[in-house]
Amino acid sequence: MPGRVESLDLRVRSRALGRSWGPRHGNTMAQLDSEVKEECLREDLKFYFMNPCEKYRARHQIPWKLGLQILKILMVTTQLVRFGLGNQLVVAFKEDNTVAFKHLFLKDYSGTDEDDYSCSIYTQEDAYESIFFAISQYHRLKNISLATLDYGENEDNRIGLKVCKQHYKRETRLSSNETLNIDSDIEIDCVLLDLPTLSESSQAWKQSAFFRLEFYRLLQVEISFHLKGIDLQTIHSRELPDCYVFQNTIIFDNKAHSGKIKIYFDSKANIEECRALNISGSTQKNTQYVLVFDAFVILICLASLVLCTRSIVLALRLRKRFLDFFLEKYNRRVCDTGRWEFVSGWFVLVIISDLMTIVGSILKMEIKAKTLTNYDLCSILLGTSTLFVWVGVIRYLGYFQAYNVLILTMQASLPKVLRFCACAGMIYLGYTFCGWIVLGPYHEKIIFRFPARRKEVKNAKSCFPACVTVQPYIELF
Amino acid sequence: MPGRVESLDLRVRSRALGRSWGPRHGNTMAQLDSEVKEECLREDLKFYFMNPCEKYRARHQIPWKLGLQILKILMVTTQLVRFGLGNQLVVAFKEDNTVAFKHLFLKDYSGTDEDDYSCSIYTQEDAYESIFFAISQYHRLKNISLATLDYGENEDNRIGLKVCKQHYKRETRLSSNETLNIDSDIEIDCVLLDLPTLSESSQAWKQSAFFRLEFYRLLQVEISFHLKGIDLQTIHSRELPDCYVFQNTIIFDNKAHSGKIKIYFDSKANIEECRALNISGSTQKNTQYVLVFDAFVILICLASLVLCTRSIVLALRLRKRFLDFFLEKYNRRVCDTGRWEFVSGWFVLVIISDLMTIVGSILKMEIKAKTLTNYDLCSILLGTSTLFVWVGVIRYLGYFQAYNVLILTMQASLPKVLRFCACAGMIYLGYTFCGWIVLGPYHEKIIFRFPARRKEVKNAKSCFPACVTVQPYIELF
Amino acid sequence: MPGRVESLDLRVRSRALGRSWGPRHGNTMAQLDSEVKEECLREDLKFYFMNPCEKYRARHQIPWKLGLQILKILMVTTQLVRFGLGNQLVVAFKEDNTVAFKHLFLKDYSGTDEDDYSCSIYTQEDAYESIFFAISQYHRLKNISLATLDYGENEDNRIGLKVCKQHYKRETRLSSNETLNIDSDIEIDCVLLDLPTLSESSQAWKQSAFFRLEFYRLLQVEISFHLKGIDLQTIHSRELPDCYVFQNTIIFDNKAHSGKIKIYFDSKANIEECRALNISGSTQKNTQYVLVFDAFVILICLASLVLCTRSIVLALRLRKRFLDFFLEKYNRRVCDTGRWEFVSGWFVLVIISDLMTIVGSILKMEIKAKTLTNYDLCSILLGTSTLFVWVGVIRYLGYFQAYNVLILTMQASLPKVLRFCACAGMIYLGYTFCGWIVLGPYHEKIIFRFPARRKEVKNAKSCFPACVTVQPYIELF
Amino acid sequence: MPGRVESLDLRVRSRALGRSWGPRHGNTMAQLDSEVKEECLREDLKFYFMNPCEKYRARHQIPWKLGLQILKILMVTTQLVRFGLGNQLVVAFKEDNTVAFKHLFLKDYSGTDEDDYSCSIYTQEDAYESIFFAISQYHRLKNISLATLDYGENEDNRIGLKVCKQHYKRETRLSSNETLNIDSDIEIDCVLLDLPTLSESSQAWKQSAFFRLEFYRLLQVEISFHLKGIDLQTIHSRELPDCYVFQNTIIFDNKAHSGKIKIYFDSKANIEECRALNISGSTQKNTQYVLVFDAFVILICLASLVLCTRSIVLALRLRKRFLDFFLEKYNRRVCDTGRWEFVSGWFVLVIISDLMTIVGSILKMEIKAKTLTNYDLCSILLGTSTLFVWVGVIRYLGYFQAYNVLILTMQASLPKVLRFCACAGMIYLGYTFCGWIVLGPYHEKIIFRFPARRKEVKNAKSCFPACVTVQPYIELF
Repeated sequence: MPGRVESLDLRVRSRALGRSWGPRHGNTMAQLDSEVKEECLREDLKFYFMNPCEKYRARHQIPWKLGLQILKILMVTTQLVRFGLGNQLVVAFKEDNTVAFKHLFLKDYSGTDEDDYSCSIYTQEDAYESIFFAISQYHRLKNISLATLDYGENEDNRIGLKVCKQHYKRETRLSSNETLNIDSDIEIDCVLLDLPTLSESSQAWKQSAFFRLEFYRLLQVEISFHLKGIDLQTIHSRELPDCYVFQNTIIFDNKAHSGKIKIYFDSKANIEECRALNISGSTQKNTQYVLVFDAFVILICLASLVLCTRSIVLALRLRKRFLDFFLEKYNRRVCDTGRWEFVSGWFVLVIISDLMTIVGSILKMEIKAKTLTNYDLCSILLGTSTLFVWVGVIRYLGYFQAYNVLILTMQASLPKVLRFCACAGMIYLGYTFCGWIVLGPYHEKIIFRFPARRKEVKNAKSCFPACVTVQPYIELF
Repeated sequence: MPGRVESLDLRVRSRALGRSWGPRHGNTMAQLDSEVKEECLREDLKFYFMNPCEKYRARHQIPWKLGLQILKILMVTTQLVRFGLGNQLVVAFKEDNTVAFKHLFLKDYSGTDEDDYSCSIYTQEDAYESIFFAISQYHRLKNISLATLDYGENEDNRIGLKVCKQHYKRETRLSSNETLNIDSDIEIDCVLLDLPTLSESSQAWKQSAFFRLEFYRLLQVEISFHLKGIDLQTIHSRELPDCYVFQNTIIFDNKAHSGKIKIYFDSKANIEECRALNISGSTQKNTQYVLVFDAFVILICLASLVLCTRSIVLALRLRKRFLDFFLEKYNRRVCDTGRWEFVSGWFVLVIISDLMTIVGSILKMEIKAKTLTNYDLCSILLGTSTLFVWVGVIRYLGYFQAYNVLILTMQASLPKVLRFCACAGMIYLGYTFCGWIVLGPYHEKIIFRFPARRKEVKNAKSCFPACVTVQPYIELF
Repeated sequence: MPGRVESLDLRVRSRALGRSWGPRHGNTMAQLDSEVKEECLREDLKFYFMNPCEKYRARHQIPWKLGLQILKILMVTTQLVRFGLGNQLVVAFKEDNTVAFKHLFLKDYSGTDEDDYSCSIYTQEDAYESIFFAISQYHRLKNISLATLDYGENEDNRIGLKVCKQHYKRETRLSSNETLNIDSDIEIDCVLLDLPTLSESSQAWKQSAFFRLEFYRLLQVEISFHLKGIDLQTIHSRELPDCYVFQNTIIFDNKAHSGKIKIYFDSKANIEECRALNISGSTQKNTQYVLVFDAFVILICLASLVLCTRSIVLALRLRKRFLDFFLEKYNRRVCDTGRWEFVSGWFVLVIISDLMTIVGSILKMEIKAKTLTNYDLCSILLGTSTLFVWVGVIRYLGYFQAYNVLILTMQASLPKVLRFCACAGMIYLGYTFCGWIVLGPYHEKIIFRFPARRKEVKNAKSCFPACVTVQPYIELF
Repeated sequence: MPGRVESLDLRVRSRALGRSWGPRHGNTMAQLDSEVKEECLREDLKFYFMNPCEKYRARHQIPWKLGLQILKILMVTTQLVRFGLGNQLVVAFKEDNTVAFKHLFLKDYSGTDEDDYSCSIYTQEDAYESIFFAISQYHRLKNISLATLDYGENEDNRIGLKVCKQHYKRETRLSSNETLNIDSDIEIDCVLLDLPTLSESSQAWKQSAFFRLEFYRLLQVEISFHLKGIDLQTIHSRELPDCYVFQNTIIFDNKAHSGKIKIYFDSKANIEECRALNISGSTQKNTQYVLVFDAFVILICLASLVLCTRSIVLALRLRKRFLDFFLEKYNRRVCDTGRWEFVSGWFVLVIISDLMTIVGSILKMEIKAKTLTNYDLCSILLGTSTLFVWVGVIRYLGYFQAYNVLILTMQASLPKVLRFCACAGMIYLGYTFCGWIVLGPYHEKIIFRFPARRKEVKNAKSCFPACVTVQPYIELF
């Protein structure tokens, strides 16, 4: 706001100067030419700083850009909502599968994770039972699972379950009975249990030396296996179903040796091409309409991009004319605020938003065509661009007088608010460090999540009354 | 406030003009006549804009309307509370029944719903057991249920349990062992298990081919049955008990094929006429008093309606006189604000409230007489009208000077607050869309409830500090 | 504030008048006498409105009252804390017993109440089992309970368990098979199970006709029994232990006939004299110190009471003198605000507080001496009086200039805040009625607790942002 | 702020006086000398109150102190974060062990503590089972525990489990059957169960008279034992693992005799030197780098300490000169505010912070070297000093004009805010006492935690709206 007001002053002043100086010196021809040029520049400047309504009234210029932006808001939001609904299905499918796996492979899983780990065990018996439970559930998988699952191949192209255990090396030299001998080097032993082994009626694998765990030197046991799944929901909404490979890993973490083994379950889901699948029936071929819609969005964004770039180029040219004129006439350089006044931040916002929408839409079309599965990047691009487009609406509200005051006031107050936040932030930072180190460790819940959001939220809450009480200070400036 | 102040100014001004102009030109008869007319109009205007106390002092007009409104507040609130207490019983009965059904028909129901579904299962064994459990509980219903239930008749007038399963059609042509063959068309199979079938000691129905589920192509299993119940509580409070037909549906939803079957329990309760019921004993016949009370409420609302309508009609006539006079004397049209000043928003509020109370009371009497069971519409009508009546109390507070200032100030500030909300709303909308698409899907809890209230509340909370910090801006206008 | 300022003005004015009038008329003796009297009154008034520090400076009057109040704050707070700690033990004992009873007598009690009822059952089998469980636990009580319990005598002086069932009378006339016959009159059947009956090995009581419940007409089953307990903790802190009689009642509530029987457990604990108790050993005899302390508190409060009453009497006399003088001299009555200025609200507060402390302390001594057990009344009296005493501290803060401004400002702003609250309250009341009736019944949690605090708190929370946004309005006055 | 402004005024005034007085009297030599001295003092004063940037501009003095402080912030924060991460591991290990012990030794432990106690039992059978469970788990410990635990020696150097029971002495004289005879003296019986006793196959210890508990006079049963553990995690991050001795105590608390025995589990972990431990392998020897870093922090803090102390000494000298000059010239003493203006609070803060950091760093080095295990004191020292260092950053923000205004405003408003808080505090204190005694005991949750934080937070919350509504009052000053 200060910038804009200053530049307005400047224009007013320059006009006033022009008028008062004009009659005094303006006799020669050069003077006249300069005056014509000045008048022309003044007209162009006045027109440039008009809003669409005024432009229409002044030169009957139809506000194409304005119309385009309004159309763009509608299109981009529609596209985002459609994409979001599709994306939800994909994410929900992955999460439901993870939850189902936890219920299948973790013994006594309660349905909710305890913390960042799924469950925890405290006795040696429970440890053996949990490991054997997971292995035998894998063996019986096809008879118990409700999902359409199949065994997948490992990294080394074998079907089966890989069990690895990490432990400290046992000390080789003989020691007295009383002493704990530990070599701090870590050994990793692995075994692959394939389906035939698991099917043996004698369950000989359970008796193998591998499964005799020495807990005092055990660091962790890791059970990993691959499963293949298929997301049939997409048959309704889209053409082809996605096929998934789930890389499941169960980790029994005993690194702390605190008598509590934490069980982590991790399921990574990769989308792959479906091969062994045969779908028939009347599938709806509505994909092309979606692609046409996406293409249309790209077109509109391109148009908007071109128009805004053109505006900025014209503005820069106008600025050059103005600066030259100013330098020539008053032999003075225009201040920085005056220079920046010419480059509208809104146009920059629109251009960034357009670029993001275009890239996002292309990604979306690729995903639709099953050549890409990069849902995350696409959702970030489309989401952020939509945020910018909606924030851009505020600019159009600024064309109404009442709102303009509001917006300018907010612009003017922002630095004060930020400055206050900086001060409060310093105190808060010190408080956080101090609180974390002095109080933190003694609250079990805070330990594992120092950089997590939850704690900050709590602190922010407790800080909140303070914020309110200092609020009057802001007003005092 | 601006409107009222303006009109007051206007009146003062016109009076001042009258006095200064009077002596100057007022000699002719026409002038005198006009002056008398003007004085008369001025008196009427002054009287019109008085509040009841002033009116009483000026013309000893007893404030009937005021008394009526106060009486109405009491009556309407009493009526609402009575209706609310009755309504609570009905709703509580329905909900208790639903909870009881969930405990009876859902295996291992924990007492609280997991999400929008009641519980979930993860293994084939659980799926079969849950289905068979629901069916056998239905069969044993009369021996286990604590409620006075009876089997109801289906849509096709048969007593029994209807089990339907939806699945993709199996591919007819032969396929290799490795390939999954699915026809995207959906088939629905149904079977009706009547009581004789269920009573067979051999439980042959469990072995039928229908209950051999192929989970890879199963979409959902739906068990539906009708039960008849009776709400005996009403014997105490009202004359006749309500009879209910519960249309229960248990849905095993496997549409996602994610390995997790969600179990939905849905119970629709319809109130029906009780036939096979025979009640004797000393039932209290207090219904007629309630009906008389309702009738009295309707009468009062009608009176209030008539008085307010009359006031508005008189106001419109006065406005016409004033506009004519103004046009004739100053040859000017009165501005819109001045015109609207005559139509009191409070009267409109009272009229709407009265209409709603009358319709609501009639509905309530019908419900009492068991000819209607439309509790919802009736509660909306009565509730909203009571809200309006209480809000209307503010008007009477406005008669006290101190409160009037408060009310006028709030009126004046409202547009600024709304304008600010519009700006904040834009940013919030963009933020919502962006946040939903970028962050949303990765938080399990937000997925299924995008348009639900809960999320918005949370967002609103997190937005709240922001609101507080921008609050000073509002004051800057 | 206005009042006090006004009276100060008044004094200043009267002094100014006195000085200017003095020289003009003051020749006669009467005049002189009057002037002396006036001067004397003026001095007294000035002294009366001084604060203790000024009084000390003016007439070297030692501020006894102030010292007494400060001493009283210390004493009363100490007394309250001591009483509170003792009271906590009593309440904790009662609640722990109630929780223990719930675990003993309610089958499958989870440890937390579900709502206002402890647990709920949904099948006939559960109903029988719960009832029989409670009865057999009563029988085995001495072998299972950890507390020192004994069977107590019923109202009719018999030891045993009283089981009552309420149900609608069965219709006498024969009815068809299909019709439900209910007489709306209610019958109550009771049976007393004494210990010999319960000890029978055949458990014949279970087979009695009484325990064949007809759920369709059953309203409630009530099991009631008395138990005697003893609170030994008091041996340490006080001289004699309290003996308790627990009147336990288990109610199986089927009034709604909704298929859900709610089980209420109610335990009323009465303190009684311990008879069959024999305590020896070195019990600490510190009770007398407590009694002395209480007596000292009573003494101080009496002194404070006398001093404050004297102050008020003196103030009233001074007022009379002032009013007479004013009437005589200026022939004018003093306005009401001026009159009330003489009666200090603080003194009234202190007197009320003193009276409450005295009565409370006497009660406390009686409780100590085991002649009374009225903990509740005593805690209300002592608590409220302490609140008043602490609020009274604000008065002494008012003697410092900086705080006085604060207090006067708060006094001045209070009516505006209250007025605003009245307006908001109206809207809120309407909103509450409307919200309750329109939305309420459909949220299970709100149903049963309409007049409870929890809901209001929630509403208040949701109302809170509104309060904040309207806050600037208050400042506009 | 007032102080500073006043002193600035003072300086301005004295300068103004100097100039106006100079020409009038300044002819003699003494006068000249005095004037030179005055000018010199004025220059020094001006320089003293400059900020670093101005100092640099005035005398090209490089701001060493400023640079040092900025370096210190970085170093101290890094040190704190490193220490905090290490400390977390230690605390987490202790807590995980405690949780694991609770799962091992408490029967039916749910995983979360009920209140300040871990679980509670309600029947005699449960009491016996819980006690025997804990004892037999201790016996089987090596076969069930996942941690590397060993039996530790008691205070009297014996390995085993010590069971103590407290009860009232039984009355010796014979009593009638009906009377409860209790001697209020307390007896303590203890028994030590060593491993051989526990290993007896007949489990004769269970049948001993000691374990025949008489609950009516039992006060508590205490099971205590020592276990040795080892924290192997530190092998990775630091050189040597810590060895722990866990002093575990299980208390069955029946003091209330309310029928509910509360089970407390308390585990005290002491770090001891590891003896029977033999670690080999390639341990990383990175400890010396950490020690060098700590030493460097100490050096920097010493430098900062010296510089700040020097500044304060110089300031005090300057003050002496100023006071002497003032006394000599104007024969007046400088007011207190003027005096305090010379001692910068920031320097005092920095000095305190430096001292704490130095002591904390030395402690940290000792802990690293395993000669001390005083984690708590060290974390309090380092944490608090870091808080101070960060708060000190605000001072540097004060060098920028815009921030300075903010800081001065906050300084000026602080007393008003505090004064308001004092008033509110009085009312709140009274309210707390009253609320605790009148309402407190009847809410189960508040009983046991009167002085705890939780309740205050709740009260503070309910008080919060009040705070907001009175906020405008603050602004009125």
